[in-house]
Amino acid sequence: MSTQLESARLGRYSWQLQAVAEAEQLDPEALRRRVAAGQAVILANPAHKTLVPCGIGQGLRVKVNANLGTSGVLTDLALELAKLEVAVAAGADTVMDLSTGAAAPMELARREILARSRVPVGTVPVYQAAVEAMEQRGSVVEMTADALFSVIERQAADGVDFITVHCGVNRAALDVLQSTGRVASVVSRGGAFTLAWMLHHHRENPLYAEFDRLLDIARRHDVTLSLGDGMRPGSVVDASDAAQVTELVTLGQLVPRARAAGVQVMVEGPGHVPLHQVRANVELAKSLCHGAPFYVLGPLVTDIAPGYDHITAAIGGAIAAWAGADFLCYVTPAEHLGLPTAEHVREGVMAARIAAHAAGLARGDAAAWAADLTMSSARKALDWPGQLKVALDAERASSLRRALNPDGTRACSMCGELCAMDMVAKALGTGTPRC
Amino acid sequence: MSTQLESARLGRYSWQLQAVAEAEQLDPEALRRRVAAGQAVILANPAHKTLVPCGIGQGLRVKVNANLGTSGVLTDLALELAKLEVAVAAGADTVMDLSTGAAAPMELARREILARSRVPVGTVPVYQAAVEAMEQRGSVVEMTADALFSVIERQAADGVDFITVHCGVNRAALDVLQSTGRVASVVSRGGAFTLAWMLHHHRENPLYAEFDRLLDIARRHDVTLSLGDGMRPGSVVDASDAAQVTELVTLGQLVPRARAAGVQVMVEGPGHVPLHQVRANVELAKSLCHGAPFYVLGPLVTDIAPGYDHITAAIGGAIAAWAGADFLCYVTPAEHLGLPTAEHVREGVMAARIAAHAAGLARGDAAAWAADLTMSSARKALDWPGQLKVALDAERASSLRRALNPDGTRACSMCGELCAMDMVAKALGTGTPRC
Repeated sequence: MSTQLESARLGRYSWQLQAVAEAEQLDPEALRRRVAAGQAVILANPAHKTLVPCGIGQGLRVKVNANLGTSGVLTDLALELAKLEVAVAAGADTVMDLSTGAAAPMELARREILARSRVPVGTVPVYQAAVEAMEQRGSVVEMTADALFSVIERQAADGVDFITVHCGVNRAALDVLQSTGRVASVVSRGGAFTLAWMLHHHRENPLYAEFDRLLDIARRHDVTLSLGDGMRPGSVVDASDAAQVTELVTLGQLVPRARAAGVQVMVEGPGHVPLHQVRANVELAKSLCHGAPFYVLGPLVTDIAPGYDHITAAIGGAIAAWAGADFLCYVTPAEHLGLPTAEHVREGVMAARIAAHAAGLARGDAAAWAADLTMSSARKALDWPGQLKVALDAERASSLRRALNPDGTRACSMCGELCAMDMVAKALGTGTPRC
Repeated sequence: MSTQLESARLGRYSWQLQAVAEAEQLDPEALRRRVAAGQAVILANPAHKTLVPCGIGQGLRVKVNANLGTSGVLTDLALELAKLEVAVAAGADTVMDLSTGAAAPMELARREILARSRVPVGTVPVYQAAVEAMEQRGSVVEMTADALFSVIERQAADGVDFITVHCGVNRAALDVLQSTGRVASVVSRGGAFTLAWMLHHHRENPLYAEFDRLLDIARRHDVTLSLGDGMRPGSVVDASDAAQVTELVTLGQLVPRARAAGVQVMVEGPGHVPLHQVRANVELAKSLCHGAPFYVLGPLVTDIAPGYDHITAAIGGAIAAWAGADFLCYVTPAEHLGLPTAEHVREGVMAARIAAHAAGLARGDAAAWAADLTMSSARKALDWPGQLKVALDAERASSLRRALNPDGTRACSMCGELCAMDMVAKALGTGTPRC
């Protein structure tokens, strides 16, 4: 079997590549070249049978990921499967199963999500390895390197399309973290497991020390590596610091090694970043990581808005995607407070899609401009069904329209008869808007 | 009586100026110089007896305005007064009464809002003049220039602190609008009234032709003029076009005339603007308008998200305020759909405050950085009461925390025992977070 990267390098148009090219209205040859160069990846583990492949990277529409999964506190698989439905219906391009309940239910959750999901599914394998170590050996730090690689192999064989691997949490990053200090230290769970393990054993991170072993698994299953940012800032005060950048430098060194092994690779980015530093973060990542697709969590442009972090993340995500980020991980209103509800998942996906779409306009995406033109033309014409057809969330727009206006309202309850659209059309003689 | 501008030019520290300096922790002399130069304004009509004055402009915290007011369709004054409470409790720095119901209830609404509001109150006087013309003469276009100035005088005498006046909707702007065309034409109600009136009478806009008459009223009552953007784009497709910029050039010419007359003046900006054009819009406005405080509506960075326009506006508002905008008009989730509910008002204020605060961080505002540091330190310590103390919306954060977590949860239901904060503190020996 060839990976999508190997296949593109051989000049082939895999069916997955063709499907992505068609979905994005791109020339397959242009897409093939980007995949071959590693500037774009195609998430498509052949073992994920229900999958519609998804492309991420330069020249492609900015994508949105929604996180799902049980926790040790909330273990209701049915609820997480309902969130999967909600996320995909709301327009999520991918989902990540971040379950951290007990090991057996985690295995079940992943397989159920893979069986039901037509969008690519990602995971963070160290979660399962850590939970198994707790169950079998009493502590997260009792995880063995072999057990970690074994989990990665199992998940890859199950059909997981991409995995977050915190390969950059190495001695160099840890030394910098300890010497410079931070307000919020490490907020990445995978980063925290790895760091605790390293400190306990006085050993290098196996995902860094044995990176070739990871590449071998990834290549055999065409699992795309998403090089995680375990050192991402968890406070705007810590943003763009030495620990973060040290890790990013390492990730940039691993990207060519992955590509040389025929493994598709993305790079993950922060986190909490004040808005004036967002562009620099994206440009630095693209430069250090040789144009690899960049996957950002947020970024959240302030720390003080728990309950509204889908908004703080939409601000950061819009700027990041405009600056070149390719893939936005959603953030829900429940971030920093607890596991999100299904409604939070919906709000998180919508906010991230707004950011991605706004960035699409800024990046000159023709399809994005066409959508806004259609909406504005319908709005000008007071054509409400036309507006709903192109609305990001037709269901919400329609229900608000019904709730806020008496039956039979022609314009809306904001202006009533004093509708500017209406008045100007009459005054300029450009025709009365149709009703 | 001197206006705040005249008083500052005379080297005086009015009590209003001193109150603003104290609230902003600014040197009164530095503030006085900015007010004297017209780079900052102090909204404080002496007839508004319940007022706590508010400063807007360079070097001051970015402010947030919430729009209230009845419409011809929804005329419930009690509801609008409830929205006033909600807006101020949520942290709105000013409110605008945009009532457009029948004339007598409009008068009542304005006086009630002024009597109850400790934050500055703005209006758009042409709304009342238009509604009175409809009632008394059968049509908006039957408004007379005298009637318009009479409404402005009455509102100023009532204590209105700032008024939006669409002085830039003149023949030059109208000619450009007609010759270049637009998808969404004119979406400003005040702009639409004015334009309809001009076309009907084949006459110049009285607020432009008789600008000195307007200045005379404003000076006598120290009403701050907010030069409205009647030609603001109502679609991203129309953004930064000839009609918009023609109007802005005119507004820039009026600013020095207002200042010369001792009248405080702000300038209003768009509207719907794709995010890559937001900074240019702010910088152009600041340059053309000689550093006058800039008041933006949104900007909304896409047209396709009805139901979520508080988010599209928060993205644009954050970038605008970072680029130098001083004053953000909120947008609610009901925008483009109907008159907002009280809950929509709350959500709109919160989203705009997030944008203003995120921009404050980017602009180096020390108080903003202190807030984020406090939040992140409390978060790191798993100190939930400490987090709530500095949360933008403590009520929502607290209720989500309760709803999403079983009683007695130490960390949160997202991670349970696998809390990164906790794990790292133990691993690094930096102490266990207090509970």
